[in-house]
Amino acid sequence: VTTTRLGPGREFDAIRRILADAPAPGPGVALAAGDDCALIRPESGNVYLAVTSDMAVEGVHFRSEWGSPEEIGGRAVRAAASDLAAMAAEPIGVLASIAVPSDDGAELAERVGRGCRTAAETLGLDLLGGDLAGGAQALTVDVTAIGRARDPLLRAGARPGDELWVTGRLGGAAAAVAAWLAGREPEAAWRERFWRPVPRLAPARWLAERGASAAIDLSDGLAADAGHLAAASGVGIELDLGDVPAAEGVELLRALTGGEDYELLVAAAPDILADEAAGFRARFDLDLTRVGRAVVGAGVRVYRDDEEVEVGRPGFDHFEGEGDGAESKEGVR
Amino acid sequence: VTTTRLGPGREFDAIRRILADAPAPGPGVALAAGDDCALIRPESGNVYLAVTSDMAVEGVHFRSEWGSPEEIGGRAVRAAASDLAAMAAEPIGVLASIAVPSDDGAELAERVGRGCRTAAETLGLDLLGGDLAGGAQALTVDVTAIGRARDPLLRAGARPGDELWVTGRLGGAAAAVAAWLAGREPEAAWRERFWRPVPRLAPARWLAERGASAAIDLSDGLAADAGHLAAASGVGIELDLGDVPAAEGVELLRALTGGEDYELLVAAAPDILADEAAGFRARFDLDLTRVGRAVVGAGVRVYRDDEEVEVGRPGFDHFEGEGDGAESKEGVR
Repeated sequence: VTTTRLGPGREFDAIRRILADAPAPGPGVALAAGDDCALIRPESGNVYLAVTSDMAVEGVHFRSEWGSPEEIGGRAVRAAASDLAAMAAEPIGVLASIAVPSDDGAELAERVGRGCRTAAETLGLDLLGGDLAGGAQALTVDVTAIGRARDPLLRAGARPGDELWVTGRLGGAAAAVAAWLAGREPEAAWRERFWRPVPRLAPARWLAERGASAAIDLSDGLAADAGHLAAASGVGIELDLGDVPAAEGVELLRALTGGEDYELLVAAAPDILADEAAGFRARFDLDLTRVGRAVVGAGVRVYRDDEEVEVGRPGFDHFEGEGDGAESKEGVR
Repeated sequence: VTTTRLGPGREFDAIRRILADAPAPGPGVALAAGDDCALIRPESGNVYLAVTSDMAVEGVHFRSEWGSPEEIGGRAVRAAASDLAAMAAEPIGVLASIAVPSDDGAELAERVGRGCRTAAETLGLDLLGGDLAGGAQALTVDVTAIGRARDPLLRAGARPGDELWVTGRLGGAAAAVAAWLAGREPEAAWRERFWRPVPRLAPARWLAERGASAAIDLSDGLAADAGHLAAASGVGIELDLGDVPAAEGVELLRALTGGEDYELLVAAAPDILADEAAGFRARFDLDLTRVGRAVVGAGVRVYRDDEEVEVGRPGFDHFEGEGDGAESKEGVR
């Protein structure tokens, strides 16, 4: 495998067109664009380097009044590191590029940068470089994360019959955004989930060691990211809405479609994880919940009490027109 | 060496404060922030991975009316790849994160992305991934470039007595910007230099193989980047203004201080390159010019006919106040 198929959506259509008819990648590249990370082939040995970028733009991904500059930088690092987790990679370092409006200047850039560095150190990542620019119109942070993958977990490995599991509880980040947009302070736990998501680095390696077949991190929301996993693996995915583990106080439908929780969706052959789930929960103090299965077919279907549920177009699309899609109406992702 | 000292300027002060009291980098990192690239230590063997990020923001680094979306994407890739050249690294791939205003949307993102991809392929780089965001206030492109460095050329290797050489001819990019800001169309060669700078990848490896001791690419301008090389190497640098190779029609002072040419400044022990310069010029159809020397001391001094010349604060500083510094008055870098 050197490229990965993407799921539906205009953002992904744009990416597909950018990448259309791309030549085969060079000998230094084991996996090009489309998965959570690209994989650089080692000069010798069999340990890949995993690289990934994640951009956060004020007014698109967050609003400055919702958090501190340090939280903005920290969240950008955490989101990028989550893509390393999705490949079961070990953390090495990050590069952080920060653009700030000129009226705030150097102090704001410093505070965002310190937030990047603190989060990076917490996660075992060195701050390896980046770029600073003043005079921008909106605060923007782009983080590239680099890790080492001994046995990378791809999106493309799910097979019909596999079970699908998610880590943690979902919907907290989306609930925080909904509260802010409605002019309310979110619950403390939701706010924490939005600003300080926890990339599941060690849990992912644990799951990979026990034979998980595929993984993706939940940035666009469970339903949308299941679509990417399905497209990459060439399978269909069925989700049981009643089994989706919602964060406390969060509706099931928001847990299904809300993005930015940065938990993992993992596929594994039947019964591989059922006996291990209790050990996982004890070791990581983190839920591991079976939410569905891979089937022969394509796309994602959601069931409630064995009846199919229509959930609309799940996930956020940066390039949808006004009012198309549940999340884009909210004006941020 | 695991960190690199930076030269003067408020942007670099901000970076210094972000990095202050950073812990020693982990075992996977050979060189952390401060050089043109960070270096990742290989799992086995002795070939490093070089990584670097470079961000371009509309209104700060360029204006959209000066060029096409494809040129904007291409220039961002070329600028990032130039940092690989400065380490004498071989190209592997790039990640490109692109944020576009919502009224332009997917088509603009696609055109910028295609420009990134075309430039990358021209330079032997695979497009490995990135991120797309709509709804931003200004077009922003952040490119991370990744290469393989067998014998990396650091900023820190210059020794007193070394000669300093530059590739190509300088000042064309700054002359193009000055023309646009004055409401004129720049000379075609200047315009080309601004939008399609040529990262000196193969020339850098050639120079490294012949024993060059240090290198930096010229993004902030010869005088300012000489300051970074001096700081990193713990030497002073003397430049001979009359020897600076100016692009056709460009004043010497602009060739000395204008940024964004993405040529190389290289240090080498005396006489190593003098005999090789003709071969270099023939092989790469590119000038190689001795412009000065490293001395015991610190900082950069510029001479004209053996008299010291006052050039003010060279280079662009994103965080200078209004009217401080020659370049920042122009409103873009």
